[in-house]
Amino acid sequence: MVTSDLETAAVPELPARQPAVARGDGLLRDRQIGNLGLESGLELPGVRIAYESWGRLNPDASNAVLIQHALTGSTHVARGDSDEAGWWDGLVGPGQAIDTERYFVVAANLLGGCYGSTGPSSIAPDGAPWGSRFPFVTLRDSVRAEARLADELGIGHWHAVVGGSMGGARALEWAVSYPERVRHAVVLASCAASTAEQIALAQAQVLAIEQDPDFRGGDYYDGPIPAAGLGLARRIAHISYRSEAELGQRFGRSAQPGEAPVSSRRGPGRGAQRYQVEGYLDHQAAKLVQRFDANSYIVLTEALMSHDVRRGRGDLHSALARAAGVGFTVAAVSSDRLYLPAQSEELAAALPEPTPVHRIASDVGHDAFLLEIAQISALLGEIFT
Amino acid sequence: MVTSDLETAAVPELPARQPAVARGDGLLRDRQIGNLGLESGLELPGVRIAYESWGRLNPDASNAVLIQHALTGSTHVARGDSDEAGWWDGLVGPGQAIDTERYFVVAANLLGGCYGSTGPSSIAPDGAPWGSRFPFVTLRDSVRAEARLADELGIGHWHAVVGGSMGGARALEWAVSYPERVRHAVVLASCAASTAEQIALAQAQVLAIEQDPDFRGGDYYDGPIPAAGLGLARRIAHISYRSEAELGQRFGRSAQPGEAPVSSRRGPGRGAQRYQVEGYLDHQAAKLVQRFDANSYIVLTEALMSHDVRRGRGDLHSALARAAGVGFTVAAVSSDRLYLPAQSEELAAALPEPTPVHRIASDVGHDAFLLEIAQISALLGEIFT
Repeated sequence: MVTSDLETAAVPELPARQPAVARGDGLLRDRQIGNLGLESGLELPGVRIAYESWGRLNPDASNAVLIQHALTGSTHVARGDSDEAGWWDGLVGPGQAIDTERYFVVAANLLGGCYGSTGPSSIAPDGAPWGSRFPFVTLRDSVRAEARLADELGIGHWHAVVGGSMGGARALEWAVSYPERVRHAVVLASCAASTAEQIALAQAQVLAIEQDPDFRGGDYYDGPIPAAGLGLARRIAHISYRSEAELGQRFGRSAQPGEAPVSSRRGPGRGAQRYQVEGYLDHQAAKLVQRFDANSYIVLTEALMSHDVRRGRGDLHSALARAAGVGFTVAAVSSDRLYLPAQSEELAAALPEPTPVHRIASDVGHDAFLLEIAQISALLGEIFT
Repeated sequence: MVTSDLETAAVPELPARQPAVARGDGLLRDRQIGNLGLESGLELPGVRIAYESWGRLNPDASNAVLIQHALTGSTHVARGDSDEAGWWDGLVGPGQAIDTERYFVVAANLLGGCYGSTGPSSIAPDGAPWGSRFPFVTLRDSVRAEARLADELGIGHWHAVVGGSMGGARALEWAVSYPERVRHAVVLASCAASTAEQIALAQAQVLAIEQDPDFRGGDYYDGPIPAAGLGLARRIAHISYRSEAELGQRFGRSAQPGEAPVSSRRGPGRGAQRYQVEGYLDHQAAKLVQRFDANSYIVLTEALMSHDVRRGRGDLHSALARAAGVGFTVAAVSSDRLYLPAQSEELAAALPEPTPVHRIASDVGHDAFLLEIAQISALLGEIFT
């Protein structure tokens, strides 16, 4: 691992180190951003931030857009030149609401993640994976790392920073931490500070992983992964991402095809006879286990629990006053029970300028920020003219 | 273990085998009810049902009331002559809404439970605990067992069967299974059938226990109990028992006193620096682990998942038509997100007689059925005149 001793000030000078980024839309790249001082006081050495981009940065670097992924999301926002569908394909691309023929779109992997940025599965300077030694990081640490990446890419300011859920929290942190570098912040299905309930659900997820014997305190990279624990964490989370009505309409009390949940074959240690909603959650769990690192899940969940735009900045009004001049777009999903519309209202009411809360009408729940592309496209029309 | 070969028909004759029950309010007793044929087709031998009672059965056995506990509840509804507070002390007792000077109140432990009734921690006929061999049981099995207990106690019909949550589901099953034996059914914070979401949350809880290595497939009675898994199950459940607002108002983002959740001492494998809501849930988990058996938690959770008053009885209207003649009192907690008020509405709308849904006004969430004694007392005024 190449490390860098580059030290960057909080609001760095912006020499465009590599202004002409070669196009290769939706292909994973990374940059070394050097040692990163963390909010906790520790320093993480030799940090690498992975990213993808779409489109071209224009000569005055005025058309850059940062898209922030959510907890288990990745940098792969849109297909671009890759073979893989992106998670916001309908929103980001040539001719889409965020038109990559006009904007240079960047998506960075969260600090602590497992999609290319330095995280617990990365190799530490001693040649072994960080594992249990990976430090606690906050969303602000991630945003600071992203600011370094922007420096590296020659991006002095973002036309917009856009995110939903944990990505929305980071968009907000960007606006408050670096207001002079953000023209518009788009905060979807998110909040000003993680709530007691969000923390409670997060704790259950973290414990689900930590209690898996294969977790081994976080140092499992030489053996089986804590698949059962990570799968359980995902089940708990996924329920919160969907509405009661959605689960009811899709699954009701139906049995998994070919299985008989009300039968003598069900019971302790024999739970193979499932309701359909159990089969669905088993599938969600298995999918995540295949693609995500359990330590990263914990690190990012802990980072999300730490989210509080007020920390060290006074009350919510005072904290948000720092973002004067940033244009905000705030939207909530009507059926969201994890990031309640009331939390978006609370955020919007404390912003420096009067800001309406748009509603994303959906019965699905929180995940609508990934699904309701047409509505989100319409919301973004004013910013991406 | 003494077993009985008594076979009881679905609606048995009612010889008052022991009509004069000695008073000893709130003290645990039990009765052998013989072998019990289960809905799954299996037979559970030598079943014992534990119960407590308060007051005296009058000579014509017309003043009996059955109070049904919830998932992890017990028979100890009221203090009575015991040294221990009851979970509905303000509702049941001399001079209370359910006046034990006038009514003979009985509370039975659920089949499969761990408060005295035959369950997975009971000794099977071969002299070893049932453990993993304990069969899948349904709420109807439990109600059938309770009907046998009623026979044993000389109770031909109940003046009322009263319950909240899983207790409400059993009250409903009583009314539909034995309408001629129930004058009033009081169904609080419950529903006609467990929903996809309730099943999803239940699955997560069951997996939390089964994935604990100390669970050992359910045969852990000769070793450490699966405390971590049961504790996690309780955390998941407890969040669902409380409202977002209640957790927010009580705990917000406060740190557990003396701890620092946003610090370098937090992180994978080091989660000792807690938010206050985490400390609260740790406490709830520890309390349950001390008093409840993990196998019973699974068996009863599976029984609750199976709850569907319609099973084998046609649609909801047809199923409930069996309870014609039973007076229903239905109430929902305004802030309940586990048993949504809409589910009480759905139940009430399908009852044979027009039945209003009363609202228990509370910000606490589902657990208000245990807490809002004054409101529940008022609801019961018409029945317990």
